[in-house]
Amino acid sequence: MSILDSVLKHRTIRKYKSDDIPENILSKVLEAAARGATTGNMQLYSIIITKDADKRQALAPLHFNQPMVAQAPVILTFCADLNRFHKWCAQRQSEKAYDNFMWFCNGMIDATIAAQNAVVAAESFGLGTVYLGTTTYTADKIIDFFNLPEGVVPVTTVVLGYPDETPPLTDRLPIEAVVHHETYKDYNPKAIDDLYEAKEKLQQTKELIAENEVENLAQVFVQKRYKKTDNIHFSKVYLDVIKKQGFMNQ
Amino acid sequence: MSILDSVLKHRTIRKYKSDDIPENILSKVLEAAARGATTGNMQLYSIIITKDADKRQALAPLHFNQPMVAQAPVILTFCADLNRFHKWCAQRQSEKAYDNFMWFCNGMIDATIAAQNAVVAAESFGLGTVYLGTTTYTADKIIDFFNLPEGVVPVTTVVLGYPDETPPLTDRLPIEAVVHHETYKDYNPKAIDDLYEAKEKLQQTKELIAENEVENLAQVFVQKRYKKTDNIHFSKVYLDVIKKQGFMNQ
Repeated sequence: MSILDSVLKHRTIRKYKSDDIPENILSKVLEAAARGATTGNMQLYSIIITKDADKRQALAPLHFNQPMVAQAPVILTFCADLNRFHKWCAQRQSEKAYDNFMWFCNGMIDATIAAQNAVVAAESFGLGTVYLGTTTYTADKIIDFFNLPEGVVPVTTVVLGYPDETPPLTDRLPIEAVVHHETYKDYNPKAIDDLYEAKEKLQQTKELIAENEVENLAQVFVQKRYKKTDNIHFSKVYLDVIKKQGFMNQ
Repeated sequence: MSILDSVLKHRTIRKYKSDDIPENILSKVLEAAARGATTGNMQLYSIIITKDADKRQALAPLHFNQPMVAQAPVILTFCADLNRFHKWCAQRQSEKAYDNFMWFCNGMIDATIAAQNAVVAAESFGLGTVYLGTTTYTADKIIDFFNLPEGVVPVTTVVLGYPDETPPLTDRLPIEAVVHHETYKDYNPKAIDDLYEAKEKLQQTKELIAENEVENLAQVFVQKRYKKTDNIHFSKVYLDVIKKQGFMNQ
């Protein structure tokens, strides 16, 4: 299968077999992660591997008990990491210059590029993956769990394992919804209706609306999945984490 | 070439031929970007394509006049984008719930996953790529340049084109520098010395130190490339941008 075919066939996998991932495959996945572009080749990220079954059980509540955390054999937690670089600087008569918001963002971007390279490599070996967005929600607890020092903030988590389901390709908006030519073309009401029409007409959308007892798909998101009060709460928690981990010295 | 081989052979390309990218190849690269995982399948990003030669010339100063911006045929600016989703919510009797810091982070992660998928797909077609970290530094000016509305913040930029150089593979720290097993293993002074030893011994490192007239490689970063005063300045600019674009309502 070509690279492109593999990337275009990406599916989120939520059910995993308990089969282990051979060491040589996992090490290639990690090597791919480390080959991704990084800010100034500074490698501003760390990857924490959780394989131990008891540790995965203990980690699951930090991801709102999503079952794949205990089920899949490998969990990779990707963190923005300036700790390593700052320690090196300190040993080389150089000041601590990256303890500010810009470098948290650079670390977040580096960590995400590494994560996506791991996903692409893993899928090329027939492994399934899912990103856990809960990582930023519970970053304070994940810091305690992994004993993360100053300069390290969890950004995202990738679950790896052999799929125990074969879900269909997820729907996406038409490509013109996300691509702009030469300048940003803002969306008028008709454009929004057109771009969301196919998604809103899906059978699964109708089922979701019925299950959630709301009027439309947007309300599933706003009233049920990601509520404003929760979003505000988790924003405060994550900003506090970024500050506590030493990224707001400016 | 297998996916893994391609990912493991990633190189940053800084010199490009002026050859255009065929439309069918560019559209596959964009399709790959849009196939990446996104938060709740909400697709919280936009991609702005700059192909027009005059526009690329005008964009170059916003990337500190790095020559590849005017030289390469295609520049992709990846933005965190909640504008589209909020407009859809407004048309579907749903409140604006994602105008806070957590959703800026979700947008930044979505945009970066899309960017890395574009990079992986582009390289599979023999295209060269480079990320421009300057995107966050000049986000305020990029917003004016592309006329970005509230809810949209530039995150990163990918240059695409046919390589006019064949640089060697960039060095990386040993894999154990970035990988931790079960818990975060902090770095003692000996570990730092060991992990950075190979990098510090490279011929190119010695040349960099001589050129920059400093004592060691860490000082090249801290005293020359990314200075603390600049970092603090750009942190403030980017935080102001995030606020101005409507992501700090909490």
